[in-house]
Amino acid sequence: MISDRSHVTQMIIAAKVAKGIKWSQVAEAVGMSKEWTTAGCLGQMTFDKVQAETIGKLFDLSDEAVAWLQIVPYKGSLPTAVPTDPLIYRWYELVNVYGTTIKELIHEEFGDGIMSAIDFSMDIQREPDPKGDRVNVVLSGKFLPYKSY
Amino acid sequence: MISDRSHVTQMIIAAKVAKGIKWSQVAEAVGMSKEWTTAGCLGQMTFDKVQAETIGKLFDLSDEAVAWLQIVPYKGSLPTAVPTDPLIYRWYELVNVYGTTIKELIHEEFGDGIMSAIDFSMDIQREPDPKGDRVNVVLSGKFLPYKSY
Amino acid sequence: MISDRSHVTQMIIAAKVAKGIKWSQVAEAVGMSKEWTTAGCLGQMTFDKVQAETIGKLFDLSDEAVAWLQIVPYKGSLPTAVPTDPLIYRWYELVNVYGTTIKELIHEEFGDGIMSAIDFSMDIQREPDPKGDRVNVVLSGKFLPYKSY
Amino acid sequence: MISDRSHVTQMIIAAKVAKGIKWSQVAEAVGMSKEWTTAGCLGQMTFDKVQAETIGKLFDLSDEAVAWLQIVPYKGSLPTAVPTDPLIYRWYELVNVYGTTIKELIHEEFGDGIMSAIDFSMDIQREPDPKGDRVNVVLSGKFLPYKSY
Amino acid sequence: MISDRSHVTQMIIAAKVAKGIKWSQVAEAVGMSKEWTTAGCLGQMTFDKVQAETIGKLFDLSDEAVAWLQIVPYKGSLPTAVPTDPLIYRWYELVNVYGTTIKELIHEEFGDGIMSAIDFSMDIQREPDPKGDRVNVVLSGKFLPYKSY
Amino acid sequence: MISDRSHVTQMIIAAKVAKGIKWSQVAEAVGMSKEWTTAGCLGQMTFDKVQAETIGKLFDLSDEAVAWLQIVPYKGSLPTAVPTDPLIYRWYELVNVYGTTIKELIHEEFGDGIMSAIDFSMDIQREPDPKGDRVNVVLSGKFLPYKSY
Amino acid sequence: MISDRSHVTQMIIAAKVAKGIKWSQVAEAVGMSKEWTTAGCLGQMTFDKVQAETIGKLFDLSDEAVAWLQIVPYKGSLPTAVPTDPLIYRWYELVNVYGTTIKELIHEEFGDGIMSAIDFSMDIQREPDPKGDRVNVVLSGKFLPYKSY
Amino acid sequence: MISDRSHVTQMIIAAKVAKGIKWSQVAEAVGMSKEWTTAGCLGQMTFDKVQAETIGKLFDLSDEAVAWLQIVPYKGSLPTAVPTDPLIYRWYELVNVYGTTIKELIHEEFGDGIMSAIDFSMDIQREPDPKGDRVNVVLSGKFLPYKSY
Amino acid sequence: MISDRSHVTQMIIAAKVAKGIKWSQVAEAVGMSKEWTTAGCLGQMTFDKVQAETIGKLFDLSDEAVAWLQIVPYKGSLPTAVPTDPLIYRWYELVNVYGTTIKELIHEEFGDGIMSAIDFSMDIQREPDPKGDRVNVVLSGKFLPYKSY
Amino acid sequence: MISDRSHVTQMIIAAKVAKGIKWSQVAEAVGMSKEWTTAGCLGQMTFDKVQAETIGKLFDLSDEAVAWLQIVPYKGSLPTAVPTDPLIYRWYELVNVYGTTIKELIHEEFGDGIMSAIDFSMDIQREPDPKGDRVNVVLSGKFLPYKSY
Repeated sequence: MISDRSHVTQMIIAAKVAKGIKWSQVAEAVGMSKEWTTAGCLGQMTFDKVQAETIGKLFDLSDEAVAWLQIVPYKGSLPTAVPTDPLIYRWYELVNVYGTTIKELIHEEFGDGIMSAIDFSMDIQREPDPKGDRVNVVLSGKFLPYKSY
Repeated sequence: MISDRSHVTQMIIAAKVAKGIKWSQVAEAVGMSKEWTTAGCLGQMTFDKVQAETIGKLFDLSDEAVAWLQIVPYKGSLPTAVPTDPLIYRWYELVNVYGTTIKELIHEEFGDGIMSAIDFSMDIQREPDPKGDRVNVVLSGKFLPYKSY
Repeated sequence: MISDRSHVTQMIIAAKVAKGIKWSQVAEAVGMSKEWTTAGCLGQMTFDKVQAETIGKLFDLSDEAVAWLQIVPYKGSLPTAVPTDPLIYRWYELVNVYGTTIKELIHEEFGDGIMSAIDFSMDIQREPDPKGDRVNVVLSGKFLPYKSY
Repeated sequence: MISDRSHVTQMIIAAKVAKGIKWSQVAEAVGMSKEWTTAGCLGQMTFDKVQAETIGKLFDLSDEAVAWLQIVPYKGSLPTAVPTDPLIYRWYELVNVYGTTIKELIHEEFGDGIMSAIDFSMDIQREPDPKGDRVNVVLSGKFLPYKSY
Repeated sequence: MISDRSHVTQMIIAAKVAKGIKWSQVAEAVGMSKEWTTAGCLGQMTFDKVQAETIGKLFDLSDEAVAWLQIVPYKGSLPTAVPTDPLIYRWYELVNVYGTTIKELIHEEFGDGIMSAIDFSMDIQREPDPKGDRVNVVLSGKFLPYKSY
Repeated sequence: MISDRSHVTQMIIAAKVAKGIKWSQVAEAVGMSKEWTTAGCLGQMTFDKVQAETIGKLFDLSDEAVAWLQIVPYKGSLPTAVPTDPLIYRWYELVNVYGTTIKELIHEEFGDGIMSAIDFSMDIQREPDPKGDRVNVVLSGKFLPYKSY
Repeated sequence: MISDRSHVTQMIIAAKVAKGIKWSQVAEAVGMSKEWTTAGCLGQMTFDKVQAETIGKLFDLSDEAVAWLQIVPYKGSLPTAVPTDPLIYRWYELVNVYGTTIKELIHEEFGDGIMSAIDFSMDIQREPDPKGDRVNVVLSGKFLPYKSY
Repeated sequence: MISDRSHVTQMIIAAKVAKGIKWSQVAEAVGMSKEWTTAGCLGQMTFDKVQAETIGKLFDLSDEAVAWLQIVPYKGSLPTAVPTDPLIYRWYELVNVYGTTIKELIHEEFGDGIMSAIDFSMDIQREPDPKGDRVNVVLSGKFLPYKSY
Repeated sequence: MISDRSHVTQMIIAAKVAKGIKWSQVAEAVGMSKEWTTAGCLGQMTFDKVQAETIGKLFDLSDEAVAWLQIVPYKGSLPTAVPTDPLIYRWYELVNVYGTTIKELIHEEFGDGIMSAIDFSMDIQREPDPKGDRVNVVLSGKFLPYKSY
Repeated sequence: MISDRSHVTQMIIAAKVAKGIKWSQVAEAVGMSKEWTTAGCLGQMTFDKVQAETIGKLFDLSDEAVAWLQIVPYKGSLPTAVPTDPLIYRWYELVNVYGTTIKELIHEEFGDGIMSAIDFSMDIQREPDPKGDRVNVVLSGKFLPYKSY
């Protein structure tokens, strides 16, 4: 009996290591970007029936698990408020060091409002560089102005 | 007597509002990107002598304040571990929702290591869109592999 | 020298008590709802030039303070993550007790996404009731579906 | 042996996904609102004998589980003080951004006291809107004046 | 300029020590219980005009401070979530050790609901005892049943 | 193998729901007050041999569990520092709102010291009231003066 | 105007450094142990009139400050829940490492109850030792048995 | 398979209750003080081979558990940073109330440094007293001066 | 089914105690330093295929566990933000006491930037000393200057 | 009136920036290492009379400030439990990632005990490296074995 999406996430992760599947292969099979697909497999997004069944086959999931993939999950992928993992911490550090800068510059350009984290996409690419390759990340979020009423 | 960079940040913010200066104007005067310049004015980066004096003139800062702009600051721009401001929170939410996804995809491409937040740059642009303009952010950080020894 | 919107909020609160002004009077003068106007006076919303000057006159604010009212503030009105004030705590309790219920019902109706807190309005009214009057609150937020990509 | 209402909540959630039941169907069977019924199924409210047995049949619960549904639960549905799930967080954000506003306006209308979270009801509806449908939530809580003595 | 009730509380406390006034004297002058009056002077309750002026005279408060006493305060009298003061901690300990007991017994007697902390009174008395005098505290709170709808 | 009193508490709670026993019946069987007996059953007090065996019979506990009832437990009945359950939170709120008042009044009557939470008793009763019944709680704790030396 | 005992503590500390007074000299003048006297000067104990005046003379305190020394303070001398100072942390570490041991041994000897921190005294002495002198601390607290009722 | 010393601690505690063994008996068998022996059994100290085998026999532990007793454990015996158990809390309260006093007096006698919690011993005794027996605790820790270099 | 690297870490630790293997032996077999090898075995580093198989043989791990050793782990080895173990706490204390010193001196020598914790190595050695042997630790981290752009 | 060492630290920092003094110059004047001297100037160590007067002259401190430099300070140099500054965070990350490794290796070599943070010294040097200079840090702390008794 599965009572929590995180159980399905654990099944996927265990099967992924055991079978040596890559996230980019999963994304290709699902027909979506590798960023969105991975987030979904890690329990943060909701798949439709066809996508869920594709993933179920790739990872040998039960019907019950495939049903859970189609349910909106309780989101949040980190075990602590301040992440301990060095790679993820660097992102938290960006928010901490650049947070007020990002706020100032978006407000200077757009006025009061936010950059949506829902109508949002992300693209992660390797950028070759003779001094050492770089990780290039493009974030695109709709600007939502604060409503006055 | 100034004993803390945050005092200089407050002076700059107060002068900016009083004088109606834009961050992009400061960046142009300093000759650097608006992202790095704003982060520096908000107390997160270190200016060289010429840059500090330019900023000092723009904001009518004292010599002591200009000296402080050339000292490496104690970084971190947010008052709480989980930010309360909605715009900045959305970025924290991205780290929370997409954190493990980012980790998986960077490791899949690069192996064990991190995306540097030090050898790093950021570019924030308006992306016109008929369904509502978008905020487009490009993050570029050098990949640093974990050393084994 | 004002380096923080919270100083302006304190000036407004102090003047409000000293002069005995009501929030509904401020709202009427500004020409907006009492909910949005109060939130703005308490440092959570951004006023335009005319609105800010109206408020400045009502509360005898300096030009510098009026300029600050037109700057997007760092939002968040509570001093602790879990509020101690009994009235505000009851709202936190609603989120705590009903949070998963709200999530389930919105997802059942709309699918994956959120109820916007930005494209949002609130209306607070007294509802007469022989067993004791009630507070009636209507919240209206645009549904934003999660983007898949 | 069940020693905690949360086990019953997990059984209900697991059965709901496995059987594809909707909360509105549960509410109809129980004869109460969908908001209160869902909160009860998620472990926040107490059912009477008939209601509990109805729910037991819908979800194939054991007699012991049905007995637990009639016991007042230890309430609180969220795993962290500041919720990580984006939909629930938006409500927490409302409390954070609008908390002092709500407090001011209720006190302006009613004087010192609170809006009850116990003698309370909630109604969540879809509000069609050409610019994108909205979530409309009506909260109704009895005003309880502070007793002086 | 007073922008916060806590300033008035500090004035009252300072004047109380300087003048050697007792809380029971304040209560007598105000004509209310010593428990409610003290809570009000410590910034937790709202006084009416006559009460506020009486207190203003006793403690030589300014007109502005007297106006503040008539404004509903932001409540919560403790500087930390877990109190450090031994006397107050013992009460926190009671909640921690007896919390679930109190919950069980009130529910056994009354069903689901709460004991109001708003329609509430408290009486603190010395109970002479040959083995050492005791503090006797009577708490009386209206039972509020959870509404089902 | 039982290595923790909380396991015994879970057994008692599970058996209580399954068998429909009331705390007042347990108290009568044990021959102590319902407050102390319930606190003991919930893992906060230590029973003597006879009491433990009585409870063991009522709830069909193993000998090992009965032995654990006679061991002083690690106390503290709440899962979080600030309780989330509305009934228990109201008590935490009392400590938060009235904490400094209680402190002032006990010191005014008794001088420096505390009200014991160890040499302590509690009595919870229903107080009929035409405007709605009240919960009446009497707390009695020995006053312990601070020793000077 | 003094509204808080901590101001008096700061005055005493500042005067102590400026005048080069030792705590043992203060204790001798007051006629109490150096442990209790120091705790009182650091804002944790209440002095009687004669003691307070003696201390007032030693440290050149104002009459208002001397009055404050006779008021029961809000206790707790540390700025964080887990102390950062190495000397004080070692004591916190003792509680953390030996806490359950102390609990077991006191209960084994005395049964359920506590060692009082109110009817309590402490004596700190240098114990000469050829391998390096030792700090010898004797703690004496009355055992208080838990009341059953 | 045992992967954590805390499992061995749980086995010892369970066996101790089941067999009715006293800590003083364990200490006698091991030939060390009851304080050190109990701390070791509770997972805070490291036993040598002979000691571990003695304890293994007393509590019927497996060879694997006996091996674990000889491994340096991850120390810290309390489940929360601020302990909830009343007996242990009183010790935390001592650190909180007397922490700065202890610091001042040790520094006055010894200069800058700490009282070691490693080269440390503790002795807990009953001190008969006609007004109620007392718990007498002697702590002895080597003074370690801060090195300057 | 293994869904988390921490399970593999527990298997290694359990096997290490059961078999009496030393970390230096593991390091020798793997052909890397004892510091890096131990960190890897404790779930902080990623092994290549040959290294993982060597470790798998030493500790009798399953193929699935060996596969997990080659996956980049979620890092962070401590159960609490402030460590409770005395040995590890001393390192946290170094960061707390010397943190600003380290920052000042590295910035004085190198300018703005950090000492890498990724391109990093550590060497722990015993340093014989007649007054008591010392632990000698050499940390070497690449200096990474902050990029300005 | 100075009531806290941190005021003296602020004076030193302000004067250092205003006068452009280097920590290595201070160390040379004091005749101690740059690491210990800087820690002392930043409020973590205690200077003797001659050292304090030297520092007082360098930074134009008052006699009262110089007296404070000779008083043992309340230590801990960081404003938050988890540091936000990137350079200092990397050290916290080392403790988090390598903490259990350091513990294992020191125990493997020395048995149960700690590496002293009191009888301790630190040396920070630039290590030239063609691939980018490195920060080389040598930590030396006396091993202190846990006492058994």
